[in-house]
Amino acid sequence: MTAAPYRIVEMETHDIRFPTSRELDGSDAMNPDPDYSAAYVVIKTDDGFEGHGFAFTIGRGNDVQTAAIGALKPYVIGRDAEDLGALYKELVNDSQLRWLGPEKGVMHMAISAVVNALWDLKAKRYGKPLWRLLSEMSPEEIVDLVDFRYLSDALTPDEALQILKKAEPTRSAHVAKLRADGYPAYTTSPGWLGYDDEKLRRLCKEALDQGFKQIKLKVGADLEDDIRRFRTAREVCGPDFPIAIDANQRWDVDSAIAWVSALREFTPHWVEEPTSPDDVLGHAAIARGISPIPVATGEHVQNRIVFKQLLQAGAISYLQLDSARVGGVNENIAILLLAAKFGVPVCPHAGGVGLCELVQHLAMFDYVAVSGSLEGRVIEYVDHLHEHFADPVVIENGNYVAPSMPGFSAEMHPESIAAHVYPGGEVWRDQ
Amino acid sequence: MTAAPYRIVEMETHDIRFPTSRELDGSDAMNPDPDYSAAYVVIKTDDGFEGHGFAFTIGRGNDVQTAAIGALKPYVIGRDAEDLGALYKELVNDSQLRWLGPEKGVMHMAISAVVNALWDLKAKRYGKPLWRLLSEMSPEEIVDLVDFRYLSDALTPDEALQILKKAEPTRSAHVAKLRADGYPAYTTSPGWLGYDDEKLRRLCKEALDQGFKQIKLKVGADLEDDIRRFRTAREVCGPDFPIAIDANQRWDVDSAIAWVSALREFTPHWVEEPTSPDDVLGHAAIARGISPIPVATGEHVQNRIVFKQLLQAGAISYLQLDSARVGGVNENIAILLLAAKFGVPVCPHAGGVGLCELVQHLAMFDYVAVSGSLEGRVIEYVDHLHEHFADPVVIENGNYVAPSMPGFSAEMHPESIAAHVYPGGEVWRDQ
Repeated sequence: MTAAPYRIVEMETHDIRFPTSRELDGSDAMNPDPDYSAAYVVIKTDDGFEGHGFAFTIGRGNDVQTAAIGALKPYVIGRDAEDLGALYKELVNDSQLRWLGPEKGVMHMAISAVVNALWDLKAKRYGKPLWRLLSEMSPEEIVDLVDFRYLSDALTPDEALQILKKAEPTRSAHVAKLRADGYPAYTTSPGWLGYDDEKLRRLCKEALDQGFKQIKLKVGADLEDDIRRFRTAREVCGPDFPIAIDANQRWDVDSAIAWVSALREFTPHWVEEPTSPDDVLGHAAIARGISPIPVATGEHVQNRIVFKQLLQAGAISYLQLDSARVGGVNENIAILLLAAKFGVPVCPHAGGVGLCELVQHLAMFDYVAVSGSLEGRVIEYVDHLHEHFADPVVIENGNYVAPSMPGFSAEMHPESIAAHVYPGGEVWRDQ
Repeated sequence: MTAAPYRIVEMETHDIRFPTSRELDGSDAMNPDPDYSAAYVVIKTDDGFEGHGFAFTIGRGNDVQTAAIGALKPYVIGRDAEDLGALYKELVNDSQLRWLGPEKGVMHMAISAVVNALWDLKAKRYGKPLWRLLSEMSPEEIVDLVDFRYLSDALTPDEALQILKKAEPTRSAHVAKLRADGYPAYTTSPGWLGYDDEKLRRLCKEALDQGFKQIKLKVGADLEDDIRRFRTAREVCGPDFPIAIDANQRWDVDSAIAWVSALREFTPHWVEEPTSPDDVLGHAAIARGISPIPVATGEHVQNRIVFKQLLQAGAISYLQLDSARVGGVNENIAILLLAAKFGVPVCPHAGGVGLCELVQHLAMFDYVAVSGSLEGRVIEYVDHLHEHFADPVVIENGNYVAPSMPGFSAEMHPESIAAHVYPGGEVWRDQ
């Protein structure tokens, strides 16, 4: 694939924050009062295209995240960003910038925002939704997008190529299936810690009625509350409906095993983020300690190297890829390939602001071109803030409808940006 | 210990960069052209004291690092920072800021700079060098400084207390020994990749003459060069002198094992940073693959949780604590305690700008109050940029002389700050 030559001529950033803490949406054991935020970037070309991207944060520090994105401006201005394998590798391997990580935290999330914006731009230039653009690339082109450094003890370029070639014969059938049925979703909306039991019961019922395949409850603040809330959800959903639990990194290893064991009778579908996202060995110890209850993690996993180890150690049964924390589309392709190699289903993290919009493209690309499977796979769905996007996610019968608009679904309405700029936007001005 | 009440009334930050890339000082396989930089913070009290601290970077991105430190201003202004256990835990556990890590990268290094500046302030208020201030705290007071979250599967507060109590009887003898003899040092000055063989030979000879206990060679760019340079260093230093090698994260697991095996005949004292600092399992595999050659790492290890795993996995034989990457003095105390628990010697990373000045305090505190041992321990020394500090390190007979001035030796001369501010300072203005 090629496109006409062009140049990037402008890059602007915006510190955008939504006052979600006013409603206790998004409250969990570690994040009692998040203000969902986007460190937002718009990249413009000399022939009139725009790419949009963002890093997701939960409030304070979004100014730092925005400044970090701004620091990448010299790397993109004047460029033709057709070869996103080369540009991604240049950004993550810059010899001075990598000291700030390497490949983790604020600077890596900044690279993610820029890389994702460049993919949004590229998909718009080709007039395709991103999942289709990626799914039409050859296995060799896809392998070229990946930085295999530090992966070769678990996944070589040749092995990646074999995985991708194996999925080729079913690509078109899987595209047709996604267009017809969409991609299965689960919802976290019932399970926030800030909601009372009546609201939990009502939202569980709604989730079933809406056709979601699974729900998730936040846990970890108070065990007696968790037992009561899990029992309530089981009563509404029945004994066989998948109900996952999510501790948001609340526990040490021993307390994770003890707490989850106390919830065993309610058969958790998985236990998410039981401990620090950095603790590979801790996750492995917890997985052994609560077996056969599966462990899931990923939304705070910093890069492909930590995912590699979680897979090598047998620490996770579900991999929860996040669209905006690791180094953007390119690193997420590496992570999808690692998961496929180890036979672990990817059930992406979403929610926040815009994460559902982005990650659906990666999950659909995975089904078409990488794992080739929907078995055990669901995308998280949270019904927050979609109204601010130009191409918002659509859920039908508990499935994500396959996006058809060109791009990465990352673009916010200009009036939403203007209203939520921090601290000058109208929603913040009276605080 | 207590001090008169006071308040923090001012916090200023400076983006300071030294044009070290012009001389190829500090060149290695991953960092070909660093400009050693400090994202620098000065905290002032209403009774006239100042605390200085900084995050070390190698150039680009130092503006982002400086902005991240600035974002912490609301957390310190108006505070009495006598209880640095509480303030440290408040900073690292802020529910919104931790999304940007947690506890890694730019935001964690910003917390490190502020926490270290507050320790500099506290030590000045008490009129003691930091290593003495820490060494005079009771075991219980020291334990209170540590955040044990995510550590309890490897180290409990009770175990930490036992370690500290065991070192109590020898505290005063060890203070006396440090005052008399200093703390053993090794030098990296001969080994930068950018130096030719004649310079290598001359600097090896100088290192021996100056009484250093060990030298270190950068490796990993070209194997034939490394063989020749290692042979040259061996010729000058003799068969038994400790010569470590440092790959600065250059390799994957298999290539690390192959490369180091090709250097086996020169008996490396340790192999430093063979691969990604995030790859606990990779380090463990390399350690098995090159045994009995020891593996060392730490300067890029993001926090105590990764160090915990490196120790649990038997991946490292030397732990290279860095003074300014993890969450400051408090988290480094946790790391010293972990190393003592696992019986692994701490040989701190230093160099850059100001890292020697800071880390000597932590190593001396370790000898007096934690491990109680000098066995197998050396602090890295690099002869760069000390002239910019008010209380620069002093090396005598290849030992760090114990600091006697109050504080954390973190303070730069005002004229050094002014000259090196980026991009307005005089050393940058003509570029």
